Amino acid sequence: MKHVGKQSIIFENKIYIVATSSIVGNKEGDGPISKYFDVILKDMSLGENSWEKAESKLVEESFKLAIKKAGMKNEDIDYVIAGDLLNQSIGTTYGVKSLGRPFLGVYGACSTFGESLSLGSIILDGGGGENILVGASSHFCTAERQFRTPLELGNQRPLTASWTVTGDGSAVISSNNKYENKGLPKIKKITTGKIVDMGINDPNNMGAAMAPAAADTILTHFSDFELNVNYYDLVITGDLGHVGRQLTNNILLENGLDISDIYTDCGIEIFDKKTQDTHCGGSGCACSAVTFTGMIYKKMCKGEILKVLFIPTGALLSSTSIQQGQSIPSIAHAVAIEM
Amino acid sequence: MKHVGKQSIIFENKIYIVATSSIVGNKEGDGPISKYFDVILKDMSLGENSWEKAESKLVEESFKLAIKKAGMKNEDIDYVIAGDLLNQSIGTTYGVKSLGRPFLGVYGACSTFGESLSLGSIILDGGGGENILVGASSHFCTAERQFRTPLELGNQRPLTASWTVTGDGSAVISSNNKYENKGLPKIKKITTGKIVDMGINDPNNMGAAMAPAAADTILTHFSDFELNVNYYDLVITGDLGHVGRQLTNNILLENGLDISDIYTDCGIEIFDKKTQDTHCGGSGCACSAVTFTGMIYKKMCKGEILKVLFIPTGALLSSTSIQQGQSIPSIAHAVAIEM
Repeated sequence: MKHVGKQSIIFENKIYIVATSSIVGNKEGDGPISKYFDVILKDMSLGENSWEKAESKLVEESFKLAIKKAGMKNEDIDYVIAGDLLNQSIGTTYGVKSLGRPFLGVYGACSTFGESLSLGSIILDGGGGENILVGASSHFCTAERQFRTPLELGNQRPLTASWTVTGDGSAVISSNNKYENKGLPKIKKITTGKIVDMGINDPNNMGAAMAPAAADTILTHFSDFELNVNYYDLVITGDLGHVGRQLTNNILLENGLDISDIYTDCGIEIFDKKTQDTHCGGSGCACSAVTFTGMIYKKMCKGEILKVLFIPTGALLSSTSIQQGQSIPSIAHAVAIEM
Repeated sequence: MKHVGKQSIIFENKIYIVATSSIVGNKEGDGPISKYFDVILKDMSLGENSWEKAESKLVEESFKLAIKKAGMKNEDIDYVIAGDLLNQSIGTTYGVKSLGRPFLGVYGACSTFGESLSLGSIILDGGGGENILVGASSHFCTAERQFRTPLELGNQRPLTASWTVTGDGSAVISSNNKYENKGLPKIKKITTGKIVDMGINDPNNMGAAMAPAAADTILTHFSDFELNVNYYDLVITGDLGHVGRQLTNNILLENGLDISDIYTDCGIEIFDKKTQDTHCGGSGCACSAVTFTGMIYKKMCKGEILKVLFIPTGALLSSTSIQQGQSIPSIAHAVAIEM
């Protein structure tokens, strides 16, 4: 690999996305990109007696599905790199333990899937392994009660609030040359984000908190690689929603980058604003993870999109930091995937 | 780099530990390895109005000190890789944001410093950057109230309990050849741990929960590299304390690996059991981080120790998982550092 510009890496070997898994809840299964998901849960508890255990089960099932779809066994996976939103990432920890594989836990809030893909690609390109499983999860019921209010309270939500996606998106990535000429998307470049904090401290407006971080990473990516504005077919952020997408686009335009026609956000794509009452859109680690492993990956494999810049976005708050009056630091990691 | 055996990597380039920083609280400053720390805090609050903000300040000061001791500026650092024990890693997030550098958040509970060192070395060896800042922190007052009981309660602690270390250990690592022949310790090999869960569910006996994970990683490391039992001068785990160190040693002996003479634990070294009332020993992300960046690094630079196997250990629980009756999954990451 080669370090490029200020914050980027270009990979010298081919990093294939061999297979993906996307398991979602029933609300996501009622949304506009429903047909792309592998599994739509009927029971959000997955038969478990707590929401946290349900999220762990979701992670475990998604990881097993990705390995199965890749035609591999657990032993073929050199590393698992994953994380989630729960305190001490317990969704992931308890989900991954039965796999028995070397594990690297990551935390980037809802940018986690971007961080997992980036670190996985770095290990593969350097020769530290051959096959890596990357993933990220969130669950509406665990996130809502941890970050906001008890589920039973039935609070009204402001229109700038987003809806935490229930789901797990995971992918098996590989540097094995046998995947050449199989029509698989490849991870080509990454731009790792800096923490950006513009002073927003409303946890019900995380799109606004994250927009400056998203714009910073996108601008740095285009500048580091000296890319033409038309280079990508699709530029898609993680979970900014309607408000955050608009703010990000405004910052990009102010900085002379007009990608308005090809730029959208996973939080906008995953729910129907008019009929699903999700206000600003989807959020949570799973929002970008399942939109990528479901819709984007499958469209790429069919040749409907050829070059994608995927930028999962994360709001690095905790309920403690908000209670203590702190603002919301944010981050965004860009991953360029091409056919 | 080259993938070796079941779970290991050997680096092909030289990864120098250019400089380290170790800032600790007053209790650690009263302990037996006090003389090796860079800064001993008089005021555990660092002038902040919450313990969480104090931990962030500690992180920020330690990171700045490591960069300064390396003779670098913020802009020379290609990535910061760090984490802590707080919910959503806010100690690290709010501490790192003023540096303005690309950030990769990691979570491995008290194994975090091992994971940071491992991932940093992987990026450098692959050519993804030249200088990386790695670190991990914990604070007695934030950890105690988050994981155990309010500080004001003054609970009695069982004899198997450990004492969370207040501190931040960080290091600047580099692949720049100008550091050759400067007498700096180098990161040579790593073994990334699997999650091991033997069913222990007592959060006041984390040494017992983590011992099987530590033993698994140590045995795998010796086997992956076919190392002689005398290869290292020092094998040191992260924060198993007296009980966990004994259990780990027993498992190693049962598996035919007798390193009893050279094997200790950072949690044993950092406090005096007889006079400091810390029961089983030190714990927390900072326990291994400051023992390494303080004592071990400085002893290596002086030539007092030449080959070290350093194995930070993590108990991947949360207060929610314990309340829900779950056992404590654990992990340990080994990093081999040599002169």
